[in-house]
Order: sequence, then C-alpha cells, then structure tokens
Amino acid sequence: MSKIQQHRLSLPKILTLGFLVIIIIGSLLLKLPVATQAGLTTKYSDAFFTATSATCVTGLTTLNTAAHWTIFGQLVIMILVEIGGLGFMTFTVLLFSMLRRQPNLTTRVLVKESLNLESLADVKTVMKYVISLSLAIQALGVGILMFDFIPRYGWLKGSYFSVFHSVMAFCNAGFDLFGNSLESFSNDPYLIFVLSLLIIAGGLGFLVWRDVLLWHKKHQISLHTKIALSTTATLLVGATVIFWVTESQLQQLKGAANGWARFVDTFFLAVAPRTAGLDVMPYSKMTMAGIVLTMVLMFIGGTSGSTAGGIKTTTIGILWLQSWAVLRGDEDVEFAHRRFTQNNVFRAAMLIFVAAIIVVIAVMILAATEAVPKQFGLEYIVFEVLSAFGTAGMTMGLTPNLTLIGKIIIMVLMFIGRVGIFTVMFTVLNSDHPQKRYRYVEEGVMIG
Amino acid sequence: MSKIQQHRLSLPKILTLGFLVIIIIGSLLLKLPVATQAGLTTKYSDAFFTATSATCVTGLTTLNTAAHWTIFGQLVIMILVEIGGLGFMTFTVLLFSMLRRQPNLTTRVLVKESLNLESLADVKTVMKYVISLSLAIQALGVGILMFDFIPRYGWLKGSYFSVFHSVMAFCNAGFDLFGNSLESFSNDPYLIFVLSLLIIAGGLGFLVWRDVLLWHKKHQISLHTKIALSTTATLLVGATVIFWVTESQLQQLKGAANGWARFVDTFFLAVAPRTAGLDVMPYSKMTMAGIVLTMVLMFIGGTSGSTAGGIKTTTIGILWLQSWAVLRGDEDVEFAHRRFTQNNVFRAAMLIFVAAIIVVIAVMILAATEAVPKQFGLEYIVFEVLSAFGTAGMTMGLTPNLTLIGKIIIMVLMFIGRVGIFTVMFTVLNSDHPQKRYRYVEEGVMIG
Ligand SMILES: [K+]
Ligand SMILES: [K+]
Repeated sequence: MSKIQQHRLSLPKILTLGFLVIIIIGSLLLKLPVATQAGLTTKYSDAFFTATSATCVTGLTTLNTAAHWTIFGQLVIMILVEIGGLGFMTFTVLLFSMLRRQPNLTTRVLVKESLNLESLADVKTVMKYVISLSLAIQALGVGILMFDFIPRYGWLKGSYFSVFHSVMAFCNAGFDLFGNSLESFSNDPYLIFVLSLLIIAGGLGFLVWRDVLLWHKKHQISLHTKIALSTTATLLVGATVIFWVTESQLQQLKGAANGWARFVDTFFLAVAPRTAGLDVMPYSKMTMAGIVLTMVLMFIGGTSGSTAGGIKTTTIGILWLQSWAVLRGDEDVEFAHRRFTQNNVFRAAMLIFVAAIIVVIAVMILAATEAVPKQFGLEYIVFEVLSAFGTAGMTMGLTPNLTLIGKIIIMVLMFIGRVGIFTVMFTVLNSDHPQKRYRYVEEGVMIG
Repeated sequence: MSKIQQHRLSLPKILTLGFLVIIIIGSLLLKLPVATQAGLTTKYSDAFFTATSATCVTGLTTLNTAAHWTIFGQLVIMILVEIGGLGFMTFTVLLFSMLRRQPNLTTRVLVKESLNLESLADVKTVMKYVISLSLAIQALGVGILMFDFIPRYGWLKGSYFSVFHSVMAFCNAGFDLFGNSLESFSNDPYLIFVLSLLIIAGGLGFLVWRDVLLWHKKHQISLHTKIALSTTATLLVGATVIFWVTESQLQQLKGAANGWARFVDTFFLAVAPRTAGLDVMPYSKMTMAGIVLTMVLMFIGGTSGSTAGGIKTTTIGILWLQSWAVLRGDEDVEFAHRRFTQNNVFRAAMLIFVAAIIVVIAVMILAATEAVPKQFGLEYIVFEVLSAFGTAGMTMGLTPNLTLIGKIIIMVLMFIGRVGIFTVMFTVLNSDHPQKRYRYVEEGVMIG
C-alpha cells in the first residue's frame, strides 16, 4: 500500500476527530463561569450539547441562548458556528498559508475530501476565495440588518444583534438572541426577507457561487450548479405554494395580516427548513401537513459544499431524475444535455438509504426513551430527529426536555449530519482492511 | 421496433388493467343485495374499497367483514383474495393450459414479468406447481385450524372459519370473521402459531419453496433464496426481541399471562406486519416504539414472488449489504460467495426511493384531508399509509373514518403496492416513446 493511499484512508478519521476536538474545546469554554449569566449554572451535558449544536451549525438548544449565556458565551457559540459553517479544514489551510508554509499533501487532500473538490488544483486559492466571499456576504448581511436593528435596539445592541444573526443566517445555524427565534418579527417582512436571502446564499455552496460569479467570464455553468439551482428553486416555489395553502392561519398571526407580510412569512417557512433553524411561528402550532412538508425539507437540506445540512439538493435531484428515467424506460439519466456518472447515482442512492436507516433507528430509540406530551404524537419525535440529522435546528419542543440518552442521540445525529455519513461511517467501519484479490461470480435476485 | 419489444412494452398495461377489471367485477358482486346482511346497505364506494382491499390482499376495511357481509359477500372477498394472492396471471396460464392451448408468447412473457422469473423456460410447469403447492399448504392449514375451530364453533361454522382464515393467513390478507381480528385469541398460542406459520409460508414465495423442496435433489440454493431467508430470519428474530421489550404490556393482556402465550403473541407481532394484517392486540394500544417498528416491517414486507406486499426482503437485504460494502470501502457487494448484479442493486435503490416518495406524498395529502383524534398524532396517518402501500391491512383506526379523498388515496396505495411500482408507473408514464439514438457527455456532481 502506497503512502498516498495510507493518507487517503486516514483522512476521514482526521476530519471526524478534528470536529470532535473543536466541540470539546467549545464545551470547556462554555463551562467557564464567565460564559453563564450570574445566578445560573451550566451542567456539562448542556455545555457539550450547545457546543455540538453550534459546531454542527444546527441550533437545537437545551438552554435559551438569550437568557442563559453571557455575551462571552454567545460569542463562543458564534465562533463555533463560524468554524462549523466554513469548515475547520478551511481554517487549517488559511493558517498554513498565513504561516507562509506550503500546505502539505495531506492537508490539501483533506480539503479536497471535505469540500468535495474534484481536483487538487487551486485548493489554496479556492480556500481564500471561499472565506473572503463568505465573510463578504456576512458583512453585507450585517450592514443591511443594522438598518433594522439599530433603530430598534440602539447602536451597541443593534450592531451586536446584526453581527450575530447575520452569521447565524448565513451559516444556517438556528441560534437567536430574541428568546423566541423570529416569532416576534412576523410583521417585519424586511428583516425576514433579508435573513431568507442570507440563508439561501449560505445554503447554495461555493461551487455554485463560483459558477454564478464567473458567469460573465466563462459563460458556462457546471452540471452541479444547474441541478443544485433547479432543485433549490423547485423546492422553494413548491413549498411556498403548499405552505400558502396549509398555513392560512398565518393571516391570523399577530400583525401578519397584510398580504406582503404573509407572503414573506410563508416564503420563510419554505426557506428555513433548508436548514436554517430560525422560525417565524412555533412549529407546535403548524398544521400536520405543514409539519410533514417541513420534515421533508429538513431531510433534503441545502447543497453540497455549503453551510447547510441534510442529504443535499444534488442527491435528491439526481435520484428524482434517475427514478423518472427508470420508470419511463430511458437508459441514461440526463439533465441540461449532460449525463450523470453512474458513480454519482450510486452514491446518492446509498446516501439516502443509510440516512433513512439512521433516522429510523434514532426515532425508535427516542420513542422508547422520551415522553411525548398528550397533544402530540410521533411527529414530536420524528421532527426533532430530522432537525438534528439535517442540522436544521427547528424544534417542536422535545430538545429542552430530552433525557440524557435523548441528548446523546440528538448530539450523535447532529455530528453525523454535519461531518457526513460517509466520513463518519468510514472512520468507524474501515479498519484499513486489505482489498480481496478475487471476485465472486455474479447472480441475479428478484427485486420488487 | 420488433414485435417482441412491442409486446414487452404493453405487458405492464395488461397486468395493471387486469387487476383493475377484477376489482371492478368484485365491487359489482359485493354491491349485489345478496352480499349485504339484511337490514344494511352498501355504498358503492365501500364495495369498491373492499374489492380493492381484497384483490390487493390487504385487509383494510371500512366495514366490519363479520357484521356487514353475508356468507356470499364473504366468499366473494375470499375468492378475490385468492385471485390477488396467487396472481391473476397464474390463472390466465392455468386457463390456457386447461383449454389445451399452448400459452402464446405474450402470455408467457406476462407471467415472467409478473413473477420475475429469470427465464421463460417451464413457465407452464412452474405455474401448475405454484398453484398446487399454494393450495396444498392452504389445505394443510385448513386441516390444522379445524382442530381448534370445530370444537369451538361446531362442524359447519368451524369448517367455514378454518377455510376462510387459512386462505387469509396464507395469502397475507387481513380479513377476519371474528370482528376484532385475533384479539380474542391472545391466549390461544396453538392458533396464533399455526397462523404465523401460514403467513410466513405465504410470504416466502415460490422461488424459495422450490429451492427448499428441491434441496434433497440439487443440494444447491439460489442467491435469491439465501438472501430472502436470511433477511426474513433476521427481521423475525430482531423484531420479536424488540417487541418483547417494548410490549411488556402483553403480560397484562387478558389471558396472555403465561410465558408461552406471551412469547407466541410477541412472535405474532413480528410476523403479522409482513404483511398479514391480522392482529392480536389493537395497534392503538401499542407503544410508540412498537408502532415505529411495525411501520418499518410493513414497509419492508415479504419476499418477491409471494403473497406478501412491501418493498420486499430481497430489496432491503441487497441495499443493506451494498451500503455496508460502500461504507467499508469494498468494491463488490457479496453474499454467500456470490456477487449481486449491478442491475439488481440499482433496481433496489430506485424502488425504495420511489416508494418513499409515494408514501410521503400520500401522508401529506391525508394529513390535510383527514381528522386526527386528539390522543394520536402523525403515526395515525403514517401507519395507515404504510399498511395500505405494503398491503399489510393493519389499522390504528383511520380507515373506517376515511373521507372520500382518503378512501381514494388508500385504494391507489393498495393498488400500487400490490401490482408493483414499476408496473404501474411504467403503464402510466411510458408512452412507447422511441429511445434516443445519441448519448450526452457524462459529468460528475457533488453528493452528500
Ligand atoms: K441549522
Ligand atoms: K395483508
């Protein structure tokens, strides 16, 4: 086995352990007395849960972010979100380049794995580009949010809130400083709309940004960008239409009576599950049909190479086109005059199957360990599982009431959801076992 | 396009329409006044629903089979179940052969499609064999059940009940003449165990029977049988263990206090969802974890080429092994010293994905149209959808209260579940469009 192969095999482990180390450091910082408001104490399990939720850019909380943590604690959360959102490997490369040392092969391959770049070329350039663009969009977000928050909260608090929530929206993390997410802002379409755009921008991923920004030069868009944008647009429009029908109650919500505010709120219901975690209405009050749609959107999530979680728009887009082709009797799966590689379709199918198994097992365990309030049913558990696995961060109310086993399950889900099924599982299962030198005979089996 | 190709393309349509015709004839027979008990009337929507449920060997009922239908009505249901269970194509071949005419190519290909036989050889022989063996097992079941039912109900009613429930168990259809399924028999392990064996036998399918029965001659078992038996055994043992833990309440159930009765009842909880439809306890009283497990089992169902529904044991077995291989970094998917064909894995992945889409869409529609009682949540709808799609026939109580839209959705699910996703979808989507003569360029996309 060559050295490069050895490196390649150990990379998922480095990635997995790296995330774990960041979470542990974060939990220790949050456990410091200076992180907790005077008069309150923080259990280590809660500090660990919060650090996991932040690093995995989820936003599920066992403690109220606004009421429990000091500004120091909130800044720790924000930094963990930024690290999780941009990826710690990006920081590694930046650090190396700042130290004026060439990133070595391992580091560069690591970046490639984590960001799914198809070639090793320009990793350093791309990293710089990703970080600059991400920070630029977030800075733009801060500027725009200030117009809303400074008149509302004054210069100091207004600026702080603008920074915090711009980071959260762009990184698709669901922490907020209002205590009840955006539920008080359903009559503020300006704010909701700006946050929607930040969430969507973060969830598209840098491969899409690059294609869009270089359009004037190259006049060429990759298949990845085409399928990602098509799926994103389809989901946003479709979900907005369905939520407009099912959540007609938004008209009765305090202050959201005018049509434009209701439209923006409905649009936000479609945007937030992919996978922002902020909400304009409590999900416990949503209709059953709306909850199911939200679950589906959380499971799908955003685009690969972005701050969003879920099984990704490209995965669902490819499987959709593939199924359509199979059912119609077509041989190839095509989109925009291109064929998908066989390997892509295969990987997508395995990803969704393993994801489904993980979700079902988690639901079964939580169904046994957690208490479901009388007015809810299975959706109370499934919602939280999909929210964690998709690193969405929405809640129907289970997370603050989790048992210890429940907390562990939700943390594991967030971790797998953010680091990636393939990376985590590969770390756990692959013990560098040698490939066999022979192949068995093929045999067919009845399916369906 | 050659003639054979034209025939092949139109076969799914013949199969789909054939099932539809049988359902319509059945519904007209059930609408006859002689089918309904004196003093009662049958709406056509209920007759159609019952005929669909019977032909699709499901067992979901909007009317109580024992209380609403006369013996004539019950016999119509039993015959529809037998037709659905053995498949109308089997009957077609039998009819042809009885008429001493050679089945033509279309018919033989039709049988091959429907039963997924890999070669056309011996179709006629196999058909005769399937029918004889099925009837023999059912006759054996009748004989064994008589020992329980005749002392209980007398010769006439006892014999009738033995025939009816032997057919139902073997065909994995959930109709019963007791009014409350097997809930009064939880202290009759003999009956529950015999029915379990009939259900399992019916759900294994004729390819497995053939391999098992010819073992003494050939000393060779196909990959299909190996994967089907392994998956079935794993699911039965695993589910029995889990139900033993979650449904400890069975100990408190009337009369099921002794260990053996409780074990058999627990075993039955694992057997019935695949996809028999009979129950020893009301599912509305099951624990949440047990309900989730039941849902999973209903979705998986039995083995291809059997009387059971669901996405099939072979499908789930292959995907499980495939995922394991991908996660471990192995190149081939192997089982029992054989490789699965690429085509098998692909078909399995597409089947489960399309099935999931159908289930989610149905859940969303029913969540909007049906009323969920206060004490239940989403599980009330998902359970019924999976029961219909897997042609299982268990209920948490929604089916008798369905709205008209709800009835239509559940009927469509049962139909797709029984006839097969590929067959139905191919019928609807494939308009014999010509294959393209060119292929597009391949391009990779980021997944996960
Ligand atoms: K999130
Ligand atoms: K059934």
